[in-house]
Amino acid sequence: MPVRDAQATWEGGLKDGKGSVKLGSGLFQGSYSFGTRFENSPGTNPEELLGAAHAACFSMALSAGLGKNGFSPKSVHTVAKVTVEKVGEGFKITSIKLTCDAQVPNIDDKTFQQHAEGAKKGCPVSQALAATPIELKATLVK
Amino acid sequence: MPVRDAQATWEGGLKDGKGSVKLGSGLFQGSYSFGTRFENSPGTNPEELLGAAHAACFSMALSAGLGKNGFSPKSVHTVAKVTVEKVGEGFKITSIKLTCDAQVPNIDDKTFQQHAEGAKKGCPVSQALAATPIELKATLVK
Repeated sequence: MPVRDAQATWEGGLKDGKGSVKLGSGLFQGSYSFGTRFENSPGTNPEELLGAAHAACFSMALSAGLGKNGFSPKSVHTVAKVTVEKVGEGFKITSIKLTCDAQVPNIDDKTFQQHAEGAKKGCPVSQALAATPIELKATLVK
Repeated sequence: MPVRDAQATWEGGLKDGKGSVKLGSGLFQGSYSFGTRFENSPGTNPEELLGAAHAACFSMALSAGLGKNGFSPKSVHTVAKVTVEKVGEGFKITSIKLTCDAQVPNIDDKTFQQHAEGAKKGCPVSQALAATPIELKATLVK
């Protein structure tokens, strides 16, 4: 099975330093800093990368689960919002909110919600993040 | 405190479908598929995005911890390797391995290792991933 990788370098102190992060595929390299993470400076940050991992995994897993049960989803769109907060002397990711809109022909809402909950609990990234509160709002759209 | 976001859309079935993932900053948008995630097709996947989040967070946190204790790290470089495996009928992220090389003047290895362990346990992404086995190999370099 695959082992995926990524790397990051931080140079300097927390507030005056700078970071660089790169995906193993080489498709993205970006800069980050205290300002891009905890303030409003333009740049990337670990939380949006984590959100991207989660949204991508959840959308794929929900489609897979629906497909395994005879449904043919046209599209599953998920936004992940990751909140990082100061807790005590450090920072903590206190919640991840997934908002999903899915086009799935010939399914009732109850069945759809069951599959969405299943993906929320069972997708590999959700499992990896089991120590973090995850909320889900899933909606069937036309 | 900031709320960061990202989004992903999956269209079609697990094996014949395709996904698109985008960071909230807009700095990266990439395609993923069953092939880019579980086989060797070129593209991104949730695991390398998760690894990027973790490597970026760990490098920043270790620098911050060292700085708080009077050290001035020149650079902290971290590679994260994320293993996803078939477990039962599904997939699971079974380990994350962090390999860190750091340039930190005037520190002994024991003190450095204590700070590295502290960042491994305490950085926000490590805390979020507390349900996942995380290994760390940290090395002081010149």
